[in-house]
Amino acid sequence: MTQTALQGTIALADWARTMTRSAMQDALAEASGPGIISFALGLPAPELFPSELLARAVTRVLATDGYALQYQPAFQPLKAHIVAMMAWRGVACGEQQVFLTTGAQQAMALLARLLLNPGGQVIAEDTIYSGFQQVIEPFQPAILTVPTDMDTGMDVDAVQALLAGGARPAFIYAVTDGHNPLAVSMSPGKRARLVELAQEYGVPIMEDDAYGFLCYEDTPVPPMRALDEHWVFYLGSFSKILAPSLRVGWMVVPEPLIAPLSAIKEASDINTSTLTQRTISAYLDGGHLPEHVETLRRKYRIRRDAMLDALRRHMPAGARWRTPSNGLFIWAELPAGIDTGELLRLAIAEEKVAFIPGHAFGVGGSRRAANCLRLNFSNCTPERIEEGMARLARVLAR
Amino acid sequence: MTQTALQGTIALADWARTMTRSAMQDALAEASGPGIISFALGLPAPELFPSELLARAVTRVLATDGYALQYQPAFQPLKAHIVAMMAWRGVACGEQQVFLTTGAQQAMALLARLLLNPGGQVIAEDTIYSGFQQVIEPFQPAILTVPTDMDTGMDVDAVQALLAGGARPAFIYAVTDGHNPLAVSMSPGKRARLVELAQEYGVPIMEDDAYGFLCYEDTPVPPMRALDEHWVFYLGSFSKILAPSLRVGWMVVPEPLIAPLSAIKEASDINTSTLTQRTISAYLDGGHLPEHVETLRRKYRIRRDAMLDALRRHMPAGARWRTPSNGLFIWAELPAGIDTGELLRLAIAEEKVAFIPGHAFGVGGSRRAANCLRLNFSNCTPERIEEGMARLARVLAR
Repeated sequence: MTQTALQGTIALADWARTMTRSAMQDALAEASGPGIISFALGLPAPELFPSELLARAVTRVLATDGYALQYQPAFQPLKAHIVAMMAWRGVACGEQQVFLTTGAQQAMALLARLLLNPGGQVIAEDTIYSGFQQVIEPFQPAILTVPTDMDTGMDVDAVQALLAGGARPAFIYAVTDGHNPLAVSMSPGKRARLVELAQEYGVPIMEDDAYGFLCYEDTPVPPMRALDEHWVFYLGSFSKILAPSLRVGWMVVPEPLIAPLSAIKEASDINTSTLTQRTISAYLDGGHLPEHVETLRRKYRIRRDAMLDALRRHMPAGARWRTPSNGLFIWAELPAGIDTGELLRLAIAEEKVAFIPGHAFGVGGSRRAANCLRLNFSNCTPERIEEGMARLARVLAR
Repeated sequence: MTQTALQGTIALADWARTMTRSAMQDALAEASGPGIISFALGLPAPELFPSELLARAVTRVLATDGYALQYQPAFQPLKAHIVAMMAWRGVACGEQQVFLTTGAQQAMALLARLLLNPGGQVIAEDTIYSGFQQVIEPFQPAILTVPTDMDTGMDVDAVQALLAGGARPAFIYAVTDGHNPLAVSMSPGKRARLVELAQEYGVPIMEDDAYGFLCYEDTPVPPMRALDEHWVFYLGSFSKILAPSLRVGWMVVPEPLIAPLSAIKEASDINTSTLTQRTISAYLDGGHLPEHVETLRRKYRIRRDAMLDALRRHMPAGARWRTPSNGLFIWAELPAGIDTGELLRLAIAEEKVAFIPGHAFGVGGSRRAANCLRLNFSNCTPERIEEGMARLARVLAR
């Protein structure tokens, strides 16, 4: 036995040797420094968490439910609540199509595992949620990218061209409302056309609707799952409308997928916390969610508008952004030539303000969005938003 | 667009088309029927859960900790507690080597993802935890199997022969104490030899120690991680010593693995529930765990002995089993020719008693253990154990 072997290199799987560090992990570390105003992460407003009602719910569950601390199958009453929430979102589904997950992130990971072969194809926009890219990275897939129109969403013509040209992806990844990071929502016409393409070519859509309930318009548009129950696999989450730390999300999928998903789920973490499932269900039993979501919509709309206003007053000529109808983000494009990665370094070091630079979301390390930035508006008060934008303007003015 | 396309077959990934349904999932469904006495699952005794202390802990956390409901990095004070628990287990480690997971099952899944290439090699015993087999199934690996000695554990000579013969597995999977399902613990000599082989050949050991703290002997043997901090990746869990529904486990791994594991973890479920992490930490702050584990050891030892006694009185001539020093199971071998899969069907239908048939744990669908059964003793009182064994004897006597 040699000293070399005792301390030798641990061989990682091939894909892991080129693994890219997550911009989110970095941001979480950087943005938590003292005095930092952070627009970086997609954090809900902690002061709006219904802490007392959740404390009452968990106390009641622990006092009365003998199964609350045990391994248990998915909690049926929570599935029934989710069916009602889906109806509120404009979707008809049955409990037998609902699959509970440890947050929407896990839903994404389980579906990718079920559908994607190593080296397989995926259709996605060219600027997308980095957590989705992390999910598919181990499969080393061919990501067939399409552009995004900043007013109407995913370029469905480009999807059609790919499919007509012979592409046969395992699935199409689409964020219907409040796109992360681009903050756009798909137009009703595009939703219908994308579903038609899925039907025509027999390709499933992974519909990420983590922000669907956080709509700032009076009339939300139903997600694609409202149009098709066979090809659209819907992903929802309690993280943004209740609390991320409960780690509960769900899928609505065709019933035949439930059994294979259950096996993959069991291999991943046995089951989603029985305690947090039942705590959420007890909270929902009280009928508190609709009012709570109304509060979030009202408060977050105020913050969104405060950020839009601050952008107008502080950003340089040539900067562009849209008013998002959903979600937690504004996507801003600065004049060409400004590198927002470099800007972030200065912003943190000199003015203690943080955001995520656009290139963090570029598929395949693309620098396409190198002059863009993602700004979160849910986690700061209007006053902090104003102060943070003033700081950012000072960095830009240097 | 044709009707066929509208309702066409959803293409799963290649490996998923041959996915085997989990015996555990089936057992969970079957064993929860009314009137069933179940020795099937590895369930802790629910009446021993420290429900009140956990309720106090979660209430305190929700009332005082402004981050308890938010996305957060792993909770450092919990890591400090785990370092102290590892010392109690005979292992010296630092907080920077501790990685929190959503149960030990997730630890297994994350490590497999980090280390195993599609089609890669793994060394494991020929009868092992089915949840481990589910973890590696999507990689379609070559599982190089070795036998198990029912008194001393994994056949380390066979491991050496494989390595000397040129095998270069991504890792060796080993359960040190209270093997699931074989109920054996590795002898101290084999622990040392397996670690030497890992060092000599530069192959990591995935050391599954989910049952290490549940020792029924006066002097527990330290796990392999006590002998080597570079090649032994240790997996621990709060599921069996506190409560499964909290879904918190941990790894102790070399520090350079923490960053890549963090990225894989983030892709899997963002982070382990901040709420359950902090609830466990608050419970541990109170210093209750050592006494609680002592209670579990005392009560489970009584149940183990009740089952051993019932086996002696009820099992047919030629049946064999050992006294397990750790864990939640007894592994029994019935006379050759008895098919425990068929026995289970009868046992549930005619006598309302359940267990897991041995073949459910055979690697590659092996029927090697077709006359064996795994019996859980933690989830039933001694009276129920006696009644269940009498029922099982009646089925065997038919």
